[in-house]
Amino acid sequence: MKEQKPDKGWKNKVHEIIYEADTPLGKGFDILLFILIIISVLLVMLESVKWIDAEYHKILFILEWIVTVLFTIEYIARIVSIKQPKQYIFSFYGIIDLLSTIPLYLSYIFAGSQVLLAIRSLRLLRVFRILKLVRFLGEASQLKNALKASRAKITVFLFAVLILSVILGTVMYLIEGDEAGFTSIPTSIYWTIVTLTTVGYGDIAPITPQGQFIATLIMLVGYGVIAVPTGIVTVEFGKRSKSQQPSGENNFVHVNTQACRNCAKEGHRDDASHCYNCGSEL
Amino acid sequence: MKEQKPDKGWKNKVHEIIYEADTPLGKGFDILLFILIIISVLLVMLESVKWIDAEYHKILFILEWIVTVLFTIEYIARIVSIKQPKQYIFSFYGIIDLLSTIPLYLSYIFAGSQVLLAIRSLRLLRVFRILKLVRFLGEASQLKNALKASRAKITVFLFAVLILSVILGTVMYLIEGDEAGFTSIPTSIYWTIVTLTTVGYGDIAPITPQGQFIATLIMLVGYGVIAVPTGIVTVEFGKRSKSQQPSGENNFVHVNTQACRNCAKEGHRDDASHCYNCGSEL
Amino acid sequence: MKEQKPDKGWKNKVHEIIYEADTPLGKGFDILLFILIIISVLLVMLESVKWIDAEYHKILFILEWIVTVLFTIEYIARIVSIKQPKQYIFSFYGIIDLLSTIPLYLSYIFAGSQVLLAIRSLRLLRVFRILKLVRFLGEASQLKNALKASRAKITVFLFAVLILSVILGTVMYLIEGDEAGFTSIPTSIYWTIVTLTTVGYGDIAPITPQGQFIATLIMLVGYGVIAVPTGIVTVEFGKRSKSQQPSGENNFVHVNTQACRNCAKEGHRDDASHCYNCGSEL
Amino acid sequence: MKEQKPDKGWKNKVHEIIYEADTPLGKGFDILLFILIIISVLLVMLESVKWIDAEYHKILFILEWIVTVLFTIEYIARIVSIKQPKQYIFSFYGIIDLLSTIPLYLSYIFAGSQVLLAIRSLRLLRVFRILKLVRFLGEASQLKNALKASRAKITVFLFAVLILSVILGTVMYLIEGDEAGFTSIPTSIYWTIVTLTTVGYGDIAPITPQGQFIATLIMLVGYGVIAVPTGIVTVEFGKRSKSQQPSGENNFVHVNTQACRNCAKEGHRDDASHCYNCGSEL
Repeated sequence: MKEQKPDKGWKNKVHEIIYEADTPLGKGFDILLFILIIISVLLVMLESVKWIDAEYHKILFILEWIVTVLFTIEYIARIVSIKQPKQYIFSFYGIIDLLSTIPLYLSYIFAGSQVLLAIRSLRLLRVFRILKLVRFLGEASQLKNALKASRAKITVFLFAVLILSVILGTVMYLIEGDEAGFTSIPTSIYWTIVTLTTVGYGDIAPITPQGQFIATLIMLVGYGVIAVPTGIVTVEFGKRSKSQQPSGENNFVHVNTQACRNCAKEGHRDDASHCYNCGSEL
Repeated sequence: MKEQKPDKGWKNKVHEIIYEADTPLGKGFDILLFILIIISVLLVMLESVKWIDAEYHKILFILEWIVTVLFTIEYIARIVSIKQPKQYIFSFYGIIDLLSTIPLYLSYIFAGSQVLLAIRSLRLLRVFRILKLVRFLGEASQLKNALKASRAKITVFLFAVLILSVILGTVMYLIEGDEAGFTSIPTSIYWTIVTLTTVGYGDIAPITPQGQFIATLIMLVGYGVIAVPTGIVTVEFGKRSKSQQPSGENNFVHVNTQACRNCAKEGHRDDASHCYNCGSEL
Repeated sequence: MKEQKPDKGWKNKVHEIIYEADTPLGKGFDILLFILIIISVLLVMLESVKWIDAEYHKILFILEWIVTVLFTIEYIARIVSIKQPKQYIFSFYGIIDLLSTIPLYLSYIFAGSQVLLAIRSLRLLRVFRILKLVRFLGEASQLKNALKASRAKITVFLFAVLILSVILGTVMYLIEGDEAGFTSIPTSIYWTIVTLTTVGYGDIAPITPQGQFIATLIMLVGYGVIAVPTGIVTVEFGKRSKSQQPSGENNFVHVNTQACRNCAKEGHRDDASHCYNCGSEL
Repeated sequence: MKEQKPDKGWKNKVHEIIYEADTPLGKGFDILLFILIIISVLLVMLESVKWIDAEYHKILFILEWIVTVLFTIEYIARIVSIKQPKQYIFSFYGIIDLLSTIPLYLSYIFAGSQVLLAIRSLRLLRVFRILKLVRFLGEASQLKNALKASRAKITVFLFAVLILSVILGTVMYLIEGDEAGFTSIPTSIYWTIVTLTTVGYGDIAPITPQGQFIATLIMLVGYGVIAVPTGIVTVEFGKRSKSQQPSGENNFVHVNTQACRNCAKEGHRDDASHCYNCGSEL
């Protein structure tokens, strides 16, 4: 249905493939990108394992270059196919894309900048966009809305937990002291959170009877207090689940992954003819 | 009510005893099998404890042979009494049954294949079938349905947790490094999941202040985020519990443990006269 | 309202004081007993701490004797004041009371039988009876009913967790082996439960990549699966809480702590004139 | 609306700034105080870290004095601007304020009394009052009410957990003994709570098979029993959430942070003209 000027045809074509997922080519590109990102993250992981890096350094290095070149092509294609490149370049994903691509080039200028390759794992976040392709979208957004609604309550809760941790951590520092591992108040607060969240590494553990007594109280508090965020989120889910059954779908329309060629915003209604953000024709 | 040809009588009889649990003999067989499986698993356990194996090796060895022979008889009986033996042989339980029986024989050909006896613990899964005998059936299927309904939401949740773990694990690898035990990115991701799920072994623990700070964040996230699956499952249970009270049983019919003599499928309606899977008469 | 024969007066009096809690004397006795039990448990605790026992052995020994004599008097009084002493002697509390009293006497016959004093901590269970005095009674019985109602579901759940633990423990034993601490299948199952319940001591921890991978799966399962019992109990509480608001109290009558002089059963209706168990007059 | 005698003008002004938060100046003061408290707590933390204290002792010492002087001024201002100073001096916050201010002065008389500076972390509790400024107020009080309503049930629950811990701790002491770290019954109870709450340090861990078996039971109990407080709190939240939607606000009136000039009580109704505590005019 879209009318495109002939001379800009290839740019629109590229834009449709890269930024959208409604055409078969667009879907294919997204899936390919997904696989490429996973491979690139696996590469970084394998390189970090010493014996693998020692044995297969050459193969990993070549694969690394292939991934980097493909990422570079994708990055350039994203820039040229959009009307306002700055919108993409300075967006969250634009910066991550750049940082995931550039370290290998930089390693020829600054030794050791390969370490930055690890930033690439952030590209995994793009997976959430690709997920939109599948039926999980509805589930994810439902979860997100419920969590958003209980945000204020959970903030108050976390705040109270933090203040409690500071106070109890200070008390434990005064009681236990150096030989048990409570070497400073920050370390002591770290231990308190380790205990309160029932993680319990055991690298630091109280040894005096008084310290063990207070530790016991902290554990019981942590054990019981977990009920609070659980209660909050459960009630929120329950509300959402109920309201949706009769006619809750009324407030939702189906949106697609088509991105505006002008400002790159996604999530337009299926029947939209103009971008809801910048108003340019879709 | 079933009309059986006289010459196939003993096969039908064996089939009824082994595959079904509606007759007294069938129930008796299931309970006997249950006890035999538990004994066989206990045997494997005891053999793995060094001092017990050293002292009672002979007794354990004899008992092992008795169990193996009984399992062999059961396996052959299962094959001969079913019309389409392949249906059983290549089913999930068929393969487990074979793998639980064969290692002792194999140990005379390949030394050390006794290790495979441990596969036998998988036969414990048959317990769930035997459980159908008792009143817990309704409870179990209710649990199963509720978990099935919340599967999609929990998948999204687990997916988000995994991506978060990869990103945070990579960050911790960059911050902490070798001396704290974060020797590679995979190890670091392992540590992140140990922390996020509040297990906290303590074999690896951050030692730098920055690392401890991020560890604290991971713990608090893990502590709070447990609320999400709990909320999902609770709401699902709640729905089921409510809808069942008035007339929720309408969509459910009572099924029995009778198995089709042709294809071994279970779970036929009480009033069924043909197998719902292959159509052969029951 | 009760008519008592003059010659049995003191027995009835003692019975009322010891077994009931509706008169001021009865309440006083229960509170005194409560304090005495707590002191006796504290004594056992203090004796187990080496340096306290070394320093204050004499005082602790004297106090121990005072407590034992008082317990002996109470035990005899309980026997003589009840019509059918066997009912008390062979009841759960009767046996605990005897076992809590006798060790000190036995220590003169069998050296070391003082260790049995620790059984005394079981007398703390009597606290639940004394608790009936206070307003928490209603809360406790509500909790108990909700837990009772979800018993079947929780049994199924625990059963599934146990089978899973046996299977996963066996797998980990095959993968990890001795040097990581997985010395036998039982030990390996112990580790699996330590991990699944997110306790995570760290005395045993996987060291191979495959082992760590499976450990990760176990943790995620344990982290997510906690949702199941929580969901079950929450829904059960919710039902109870709702049904009670309009007229749920109809099915409840107020019971008191008066005990039948014949069979020692408690929990009679306020307006009862005969024991609901043995029918003898109250 | 308030009529103030001219000669007491500055006292009222100071009172309004310090004790209330409805005027711009009052809000500003509260925010400033909030920042000052955070700085003072950070100072104590930094001083406890050995290498920071060694390097920057002088700067920290000067900042400490600045904070102490500002706290002193605030403390005096709070006393002079209130009609009944005793009401403030002997209130919870009054005592904390004094204890947070005085240690530095005392350190010139008694060496080492600087340790008391750590008490200052308790001033963080004042944050909850300052929080009232923001929209979280409603959320916090909702949480508080729900927790208050489930207090009785949670007390019963904690009580049962404690008694269970004493009994199981005693049993583990008898089974495991010294070499596994169960050196006394109190230590053993400490371990039981560490296990029951799924914290699991691993500083003490059972080594005998029987001990590990009972430890397994404790873990499963702890893992399942967390459902109880969660269920209680969730149901309570659910009730509150439902009742509030239609007209639940009827029982609530809006209160402000204005404090009575006479007795320092806060939380007066917006339309109040007299203190609800002492009756003096506002």
